[in-house]
Amino acid sequence: MKFSFKNDYSEGCHPNILQALLQYNLDQQAGYGEDEYSLKAKALIKEKMNSKHADIYFVSGGTQANLIVISAILKPYQCVISAASGHILNNETGAIEATGHKVLSIQTEDGKLNPSDIIPVLEGHRNVPHQVMPKLVYISNSTELGTIYQKKELEELSAFCKENHLYLFMDGARLGHGLSSEISDLDLADIAALTDVFYLGGTKNGALIGEAIVINNPVLQEDFAFNIKQKGALLAKGRLLGIQFLELMKDNLYFDLAKHANQQAMKIKKAMQEKGVGFLSDTYTNQIFPILHHDLIQVLSEDFEFYVWKKVDENSSAIRLITSWNTADEAVNRFIEIIQAEL
Amino acid sequence: MKFSFKNDYSEGCHPNILQALLQYNLDQQAGYGEDEYSLKAKALIKEKMNSKHADIYFVSGGTQANLIVISAILKPYQCVISAASGHILNNETGAIEATGHKVLSIQTEDGKLNPSDIIPVLEGHRNVPHQVMPKLVYISNSTELGTIYQKKELEELSAFCKENHLYLFMDGARLGHGLSSEISDLDLADIAALTDVFYLGGTKNGALIGEAIVINNPVLQEDFAFNIKQKGALLAKGRLLGIQFLELMKDNLYFDLAKHANQQAMKIKKAMQEKGVGFLSDTYTNQIFPILHHDLIQVLSEDFEFYVWKKVDENSSAIRLITSWNTADEAVNRFIEIIQAEL
Amino acid sequence: MKFSFKNDYSEGCHPNILQALLQYNLDQQAGYGEDEYSLKAKALIKEKMNSKHADIYFVSGGTQANLIVISAILKPYQCVISAASGHILNNETGAIEATGHKVLSIQTEDGKLNPSDIIPVLEGHRNVPHQVMPKLVYISNSTELGTIYQKKELEELSAFCKENHLYLFMDGARLGHGLSSEISDLDLADIAALTDVFYLGGTKNGALIGEAIVINNPVLQEDFAFNIKQKGALLAKGRLLGIQFLELMKDNLYFDLAKHANQQAMKIKKAMQEKGVGFLSDTYTNQIFPILHHDLIQVLSEDFEFYVWKKVDENSSAIRLITSWNTADEAVNRFIEIIQAEL
Amino acid sequence: MKFSFKNDYSEGCHPNILQALLQYNLDQQAGYGEDEYSLKAKALIKEKMNSKHADIYFVSGGTQANLIVISAILKPYQCVISAASGHILNNETGAIEATGHKVLSIQTEDGKLNPSDIIPVLEGHRNVPHQVMPKLVYISNSTELGTIYQKKELEELSAFCKENHLYLFMDGARLGHGLSSEISDLDLADIAALTDVFYLGGTKNGALIGEAIVINNPVLQEDFAFNIKQKGALLAKGRLLGIQFLELMKDNLYFDLAKHANQQAMKIKKAMQEKGVGFLSDTYTNQIFPILHHDLIQVLSEDFEFYVWKKVDENSSAIRLITSWNTADEAVNRFIEIIQAEL
Repeated sequence: MKFSFKNDYSEGCHPNILQALLQYNLDQQAGYGEDEYSLKAKALIKEKMNSKHADIYFVSGGTQANLIVISAILKPYQCVISAASGHILNNETGAIEATGHKVLSIQTEDGKLNPSDIIPVLEGHRNVPHQVMPKLVYISNSTELGTIYQKKELEELSAFCKENHLYLFMDGARLGHGLSSEISDLDLADIAALTDVFYLGGTKNGALIGEAIVINNPVLQEDFAFNIKQKGALLAKGRLLGIQFLELMKDNLYFDLAKHANQQAMKIKKAMQEKGVGFLSDTYTNQIFPILHHDLIQVLSEDFEFYVWKKVDENSSAIRLITSWNTADEAVNRFIEIIQAEL
Repeated sequence: MKFSFKNDYSEGCHPNILQALLQYNLDQQAGYGEDEYSLKAKALIKEKMNSKHADIYFVSGGTQANLIVISAILKPYQCVISAASGHILNNETGAIEATGHKVLSIQTEDGKLNPSDIIPVLEGHRNVPHQVMPKLVYISNSTELGTIYQKKELEELSAFCKENHLYLFMDGARLGHGLSSEISDLDLADIAALTDVFYLGGTKNGALIGEAIVINNPVLQEDFAFNIKQKGALLAKGRLLGIQFLELMKDNLYFDLAKHANQQAMKIKKAMQEKGVGFLSDTYTNQIFPILHHDLIQVLSEDFEFYVWKKVDENSSAIRLITSWNTADEAVNRFIEIIQAEL
Repeated sequence: MKFSFKNDYSEGCHPNILQALLQYNLDQQAGYGEDEYSLKAKALIKEKMNSKHADIYFVSGGTQANLIVISAILKPYQCVISAASGHILNNETGAIEATGHKVLSIQTEDGKLNPSDIIPVLEGHRNVPHQVMPKLVYISNSTELGTIYQKKELEELSAFCKENHLYLFMDGARLGHGLSSEISDLDLADIAALTDVFYLGGTKNGALIGEAIVINNPVLQEDFAFNIKQKGALLAKGRLLGIQFLELMKDNLYFDLAKHANQQAMKIKKAMQEKGVGFLSDTYTNQIFPILHHDLIQVLSEDFEFYVWKKVDENSSAIRLITSWNTADEAVNRFIEIIQAEL
Repeated sequence: MKFSFKNDYSEGCHPNILQALLQYNLDQQAGYGEDEYSLKAKALIKEKMNSKHADIYFVSGGTQANLIVISAILKPYQCVISAASGHILNNETGAIEATGHKVLSIQTEDGKLNPSDIIPVLEGHRNVPHQVMPKLVYISNSTELGTIYQKKELEELSAFCKENHLYLFMDGARLGHGLSSEISDLDLADIAALTDVFYLGGTKNGALIGEAIVINNPVLQEDFAFNIKQKGALLAKGRLLGIQFLELMKDNLYFDLAKHANQQAMKIKKAMQEKGVGFLSDTYTNQIFPILHHDLIQVLSEDFEFYVWKKVDENSSAIRLITSWNTADEAVNRFIEIIQAEL
């Protein structure tokens, strides 16, 4: 069986989580997120981000988190600004528009947004009331291209949003990987301080399901739970989400898992760089996009699964490799050996 | 700690499920429901309902299943007909309306719908195009009141719907309990034959999460997966749902669990009847609504948790007791002992 | 040709309006409601209702006004409370639900709402976050049944809404008739003071099209124009609406027209009462619902068009007669003559 | 007072329309578009487009027509394809998204779409079910840039749409101008034969309000009226729309008015070309975009109103001039005189 580098949700979950599910299995608990595990997990997250007044809700996946947050925040005539590579633009079957809101798209090289990207969009939307009103900036960290925000960048973007009465929402499906990157200078407390809302992704970092939506801006906290229920995202057995985040937040497991994933990708990246391989984007998280000759891609695909991402020229394409919390050294080493043998 | 009869989702899941999650945990699988467990589970369900051509999708909960099915089926100007006690009317924060569709409500004594209930609604909605067009009949089995449909009733309703170009959708959050009731003459194959869509509830019958949406009518099958994704219900690790339904469908586990829940409720019911207790509705599933003196309710609430459902007169109220796949004899016996001692 | 008492929109418009359309026809004006006629008409309305700080928008019809106001005000999880006879419940093809909001229905004898009707609905919707949150009370004056609010009733309802953080919205499709009724003790200034939003109907009172939405509550004024445009209700040639309301508001034309319509209905009512005819509801506006023997209905329908509203017993039914700003004495007299001759 | 070339909806309507409104004013007619004028107007349109089986509905404006047609046709997960300059993308406050549908945008030089523009969009949306499904192609004729489709272009686009199971919808807010252009080889029968739906704009071509939605594809005709009502677009006094289209369709008035507007623009264009003025796009309808020195723009703006459309370089900008059915020779000549004197 081929080892898959296709994504970071191919396996189950970290064994600690299954262990805890077993341990607490027959305890009777309140439903709908009022169980004691959920309450403890929320307390731990708040502690880690050093912010007592945030509101936290667990939902099952990223598209769900995105559509709930955005539809909860915006008035009918307000819209979202996103980088063109944003997950909500391309990979969620129009989930945001289905709640009634346009997503304005900005082409950027690295999948990130900065104030100078946004200014022309604001200037192009001032024909009141004939145009939608931009009100929320959607970013991801790490992005769909594996890139991350530096502290200075996020501070500037956050300040710009405040000045322009825009909310800043960070999709954190891979926030663990973003913050654990060797070049990141941000931590969870920074994210809490610099965004209005964000979420902490579990699904792609060792959980079975689960994203923790964190609402920092008190204006956005009121009655939020109604939105969760209305969109069908309030699990009767909320304990399933609570137990998972409780385990992930214990000690430093969540960030340890992300760090492992990043390191496995970086090992491959380094081995390739030593052989002169170029990359589509310069990433330091668990996604890498090496540009390889089609013959080599063919050889690699005999032992591994991965996506061929983008044709670069007649003879070569970028592939996407994603490592996970569970990517073993063995798979990484075998992959590197082939690279070293073939190049 | 008090034992809770408040609902059937207080505990975790059946141990077989956790065992299977452990066993398959580190196998790499395709995401988004294309994993082998999901495929096998769907095959098992089709086998059990003797219907090869159904389409099956797993989602995480009942509100989600309801809103996806209804919004996928209806055109913007079409609406749902439901008994006034329907879950979609009272307990889902307007989830159906949030997708754009009105739910017409019919008062019925037992929470069920029959053709004579529906005819006046159809007759009252013929002022084209000034009124919504009724197009889908929503029923539950068992209902919110614990009652169930008999085969003859469901056949009549199904035929009526066909004649009147209405789709018939059965909310099966407690379908296991409905079909396992001692007085039920329906089986899964009947449900598949007599409804256009239904779902098989896992959450309230031994799973951690999960409802299996079964689309019987081929007209409604086209492109259905888009709706699942758009509403944020397509789990990246679909294996979580697949593994659970695989275990529940093996042997007869799903129905065995429901039968256990029903039997525990029936034991309490019988003990109460022997003492002359009356009930709000005559149920044969895992929900019972005995009418008790307030003093007795007070005594019982020292050891047990349950909802006081409805005040009946100055001195007495109906309470709601719900048993589950995991309700132990010990709890049932203790409850019965108190009843017998006090009455 | 038979004279029609079917509704109050069978004819064109008051001649003054056509005269003004002719007079101003070739003047170039700004589009989208920024024309000078619209501005003057708004100033006149504010003057008449003695409220400088209201915001006014003209739209083309009642369903449009209802759906724009309600969807602009409510958050996704909030809902409307309406009497069961409310136009939004029965005659607007689910327009409100199509914007995502449930309408809770209350059965009332006279089509009006008072605090004691609403209290049980509020009490029945406190299971946060599993139920929609009631937030807006929708009433009509005159109602669909021709009844009207007295000042004391509206004051009580308004105070109740404020105490309970509910917005009060009055559908004024027939507000002219309501306020011009011989038994009304309300005027336009009262309506402005006691509601958060209302509209002043033109279509059913002498205009070709047009309803003037008046937003009294400053909280609801912000960015309202976006909603008008987004719902397709912002006319490029807003002058058409402006000119009509300008003419209707000049002198007392709007109320004179409504008074005429009411008086014609009252003449018929009085003639019938003298002959012992009973009525479905006791109305003092331009809608009456006399209960007549089927033989008499047959005779009347040879010369007149009207709706047979409701069967009362084997031999008799209530019919609905609606008079308009243009109902001539001749038609009324002929109708009365037949009544007097036949009874 | 300055003469305005800002748009084609600055004046009232063609005098024939007011004459007819006066003539028929006091006739009693059925409401909601069942009046005899509407029926006759529809018959005339069908005759002119040589298509008996089309369904026609009159609504009040273009945004309304767009949102009704698109939301009626698409399933929740389907989306629209539009040129980036499309009115629905930039000038309708997100009206399409507010009904739940994404609009995919394609950059094109001339505001038109051809198959080669669309193919990459289709190819980029094949990740079922993670992406929206393109299902409807939205075009305008004339476009927002004043350009028009030639018969061969429209035939190719129509055939391409059929092959790819896409519906073709033409926004005809300025269809009169498009078809009356001196270089157009299309007529109304072609439009009916080559599109699934289109509308015939009245507002910008001599009516007070009104667009005639024409549904050619029988698949899209079923129950369409419900959508009109649900979106608040069904006028009680539909006669207002019927009478206007009846007058516009009589003889050749509709196209005569458009031809006049086009000719006035062409006169200015020709005078400018003789003086060597360049244009942003090469148009043959009632919109022209000459590029002028800022000094000249300043001089012209002393006597005329128009939009400065786009800065071209340090010293010059394109302005937009729009002529209408009512643009008099006098205004055109005066404008030309200034051009001739200044250049």
